[in-house]
Amino acid sequence: MTTSVSALIVNSANAPLIRGTIERRTVGPKDVRLSISYSGICHSDVHQARSEWGNDIFPMVPGHEIIGEVVEVGTEVDKFKVGQTVGVGVFVDSCRECDACKADQESYCERGPVGAYNDRSYEGDVQFGGYSGEIVVDQHFVLHIPEGLNLAEAAPLLCAGITVYSPLRHWGAGKGKKVAILGMGGLGHLAVKFAVAMGAEVTVLGHSLKKKDDALAFGAVDYRSTNDPETFKDFAKKFDFILNTTSADVDVDALLNMIKLDGSLVFVGLPEKSQSLNIFSLTLGRRSMAGSSVGGQREIQEMLEFAAEHQIGANIELLDATDVDSINTAWNRVVSSDVRYRFVIDAKTI
Amino acid sequence: MTTSVSALIVNSANAPLIRGTIERRTVGPKDVRLSISYSGICHSDVHQARSEWGNDIFPMVPGHEIIGEVVEVGTEVDKFKVGQTVGVGVFVDSCRECDACKADQESYCERGPVGAYNDRSYEGDVQFGGYSGEIVVDQHFVLHIPEGLNLAEAAPLLCAGITVYSPLRHWGAGKGKKVAILGMGGLGHLAVKFAVAMGAEVTVLGHSLKKKDDALAFGAVDYRSTNDPETFKDFAKKFDFILNTTSADVDVDALLNMIKLDGSLVFVGLPEKSQSLNIFSLTLGRRSMAGSSVGGQREIQEMLEFAAEHQIGANIELLDATDVDSINTAWNRVVSSDVRYRFVIDAKTI
Repeated sequence: MTTSVSALIVNSANAPLIRGTIERRTVGPKDVRLSISYSGICHSDVHQARSEWGNDIFPMVPGHEIIGEVVEVGTEVDKFKVGQTVGVGVFVDSCRECDACKADQESYCERGPVGAYNDRSYEGDVQFGGYSGEIVVDQHFVLHIPEGLNLAEAAPLLCAGITVYSPLRHWGAGKGKKVAILGMGGLGHLAVKFAVAMGAEVTVLGHSLKKKDDALAFGAVDYRSTNDPETFKDFAKKFDFILNTTSADVDVDALLNMIKLDGSLVFVGLPEKSQSLNIFSLTLGRRSMAGSSVGGQREIQEMLEFAAEHQIGANIELLDATDVDSINTAWNRVVSSDVRYRFVIDAKTI
Repeated sequence: MTTSVSALIVNSANAPLIRGTIERRTVGPKDVRLSISYSGICHSDVHQARSEWGNDIFPMVPGHEIIGEVVEVGTEVDKFKVGQTVGVGVFVDSCRECDACKADQESYCERGPVGAYNDRSYEGDVQFGGYSGEIVVDQHFVLHIPEGLNLAEAAPLLCAGITVYSPLRHWGAGKGKKVAILGMGGLGHLAVKFAVAMGAEVTVLGHSLKKKDDALAFGAVDYRSTNDPETFKDFAKKFDFILNTTSADVDVDALLNMIKLDGSLVFVGLPEKSQSLNIFSLTLGRRSMAGSSVGGQREIQEMLEFAAEHQIGANIELLDATDVDSINTAWNRVVSSDVRYRFVIDAKTI
């Protein structure tokens, strides 16, 4: 028997979020049902609800940065108990059989992982996300939220956080490394905090210098404008690693030329158009250019523990969904980058 | 006092090679003078002599795949003795002080390494290359040629060989790895031999299937055409590593999609135009795209020992320079890829 729960729903491309109800599946043997406390707003929510990426399934309930409390567990659930604080992120299922899944890299599942929303389960059921009162998820895709994290500020860690933590770890940002974070929005501000906590020397590269004070407060040693040609001269061959957290078109060659021998430029945003580069920019310093998705479940758990240890959470603006239009307004502010640095919905108001 | 030696000279862009004499510097304390036995023809010789890369210095004596015999050593030379067989490759000097040089990566020297030809020494002297009777080189940039190598076939190892050996080693081609070599020309055929000797499972990707038998004889397990769309389907997410040995424009996305999680596409050729890609092709499998130059002196020596151990040399067509036009003809055949797989000049005939 399914359960009716409240949700914020988009019924068609570009339609506003409206209040409604959806059905959640009965808790299966390995499922965890959680009452959602906080649900972060990710730019991808807007992209998908506005059909900017194609393959949209309406009605859509966005949200994949979910913090909640366990209210029911299936008969075979051994990882969670009722009353625990838990999280759910970008994916809620994967094949569990491919090389990627076996290597704890579920986000790169060869069958294709199942998204928390705007996707179908392997059985064909439409998935509804976290802008909702409750959600039912297989325990493998539920995370323990460690003590000491501010829960509202922790919600964005489930997508924005792991999206930047994973490449910083994979490419070895840490002591002795000079790291640049390109763009300081929702992803970028968490990237600065994580890279600083890992011990790297962090420089932020942004369009303007408006966020310089924030960056320095987060622990960055410098903040430079990409509109200033001197930035590219001063930092020629200086960085071990540049993490591009933007989705804008970039001058790939100019970025690569700031990277030292054997360094990497890694994209976590997805520009709409193809990007071009002179292969010489790579060859000149055996540089790499790579892309990274969110981490797997084991790494998300590790990231949460790291965040608790270093008291890392997102800087957020908490939203009350009682007036649903305030969420639509927040979406427009996300599009215009008018948020420092992430919106989180108080899901109890949904 | 300089020494006059015979050489094949290009006096201006697109002029043919003609016979002439050049001056070699007096042997300094750390210099080795060698009588050149064999000089390989590299496609870059033609590019530079025809001003296709810019920054050309005429008159030009090309050649950076040099095998010879030591005929004189400076007072402080401790690595070489008269009578030994030695080699000289792409670079003949570097700053020796930067991080790259200190890490035995002279080819990535931050001051810029000095090329064997079409370049100037740090003192400003024009460098003349291996299409010549003799050359004088600092001992740091001279290699020991191990016993057992066929000397004419070893000449191309000094550029083509190290250009492919270095990335195969750096990215860990070896046992258990599925490696694709894109293009089987001078570089590619050596890449196949080295990757096979390292223990990798090697597939060659070429335009046509004309060289299939050769590839299998070199130890490849398969040879597939990039003009056949099935190739890209059959090998979707299959390779750990693709080495692009061509300088042609390529469909970067199509190549990346053949690479499995955490695999790499590495360019050693330099396409004239910028290449474009969809960042999603990287993100989807945390794939990397990189470029690699020739290895440093220590790695070249290691490569030569490896080649001797595994009896690897280039398949060559040996040229007599008595009729200098035969060399000009060979250059045209290089441009039209009409050589299996590398021309080498018998330098005693220069």
